[in-house]
Amino acid sequence: MTDSAIPVTPIAASPEALGKVKYNDDGLVAAIVQDIETGAVLMMAWMNDETLRMSLEQGRTVFWSRSRQEVWRKGDTSGDRQFIREAFYDCDGDTLLFKVVQEGNGACHTGNYTCFFSPFGDALS
Amino acid sequence: MTDSAIPVTPIAASPEALGKVKYNDDGLVAAIVQDIETGAVLMMAWMNDETLRMSLEQGRTVFWSRSRQEVWRKGDTSGDRQFIREAFYDCDGDTLLFKVVQEGNGACHTGNYTCFFSPFGDALS
Repeated sequence: MTDSAIPVTPIAASPEALGKVKYNDDGLVAAIVQDIETGAVLMMAWMNDETLRMSLEQGRTVFWSRSRQEVWRKGDTSGDRQFIREAFYDCDGDTLLFKVVQEGNGACHTGNYTCFFSPFGDALS
Repeated sequence: MTDSAIPVTPIAASPEALGKVKYNDDGLVAAIVQDIETGAVLMMAWMNDETLRMSLEQGRTVFWSRSRQEVWRKGDTSGDRQFIREAFYDCDGDTLLFKVVQEGNGACHTGNYTCFFSPFGDALS
């Protein structure tokens, strides 16, 4: 989807919900991104408290880049933005799931649609 | 699905593929589990080199429990086993994705089908 007019739908998270999130020793929480249209798991990256709030308020995924040690708003460079439609925290509060509309060709910096394109065996998909 | 005769389909991973996996300082790699039938993301847990190999060879998810510091073969206690159909490593080699047939009521120790049952906002699913 290359339509530049993809709607943005911020999520109003309660302080209670945000308080359920548990960050690791580096202040980070794992964030899984799933294509809400196809169901494909696209990628996993990390958020800190700041970028989680940015993601929900802006309706786009914003991560913390561990390699660059900086805020990484997905798509600002590549153009392949992720527009959040639903956001969840898990039973332990240490993993998040974002269901998104994926813009452009996909989520992976390699040009692949999903980062999970390498099977261990002879997977069919 | 409560059928006890769910087929087991081990995955023969090449040493090359296994060598692509990068473990963190604790010797662990993040493993996302997705229901291959519904597409739902069920949970995220951690594997070490040993439990990854066990998972592929046994065709069932086997994790490393960080809280208990022991091998945790999913479903041995709960009965809700996960039978692996496809397994992937991501572009960075630091996250895995398993597409499984989920036995029983679901993946979550709370009794929920998925661990991601808590929305930040007013999600519909």
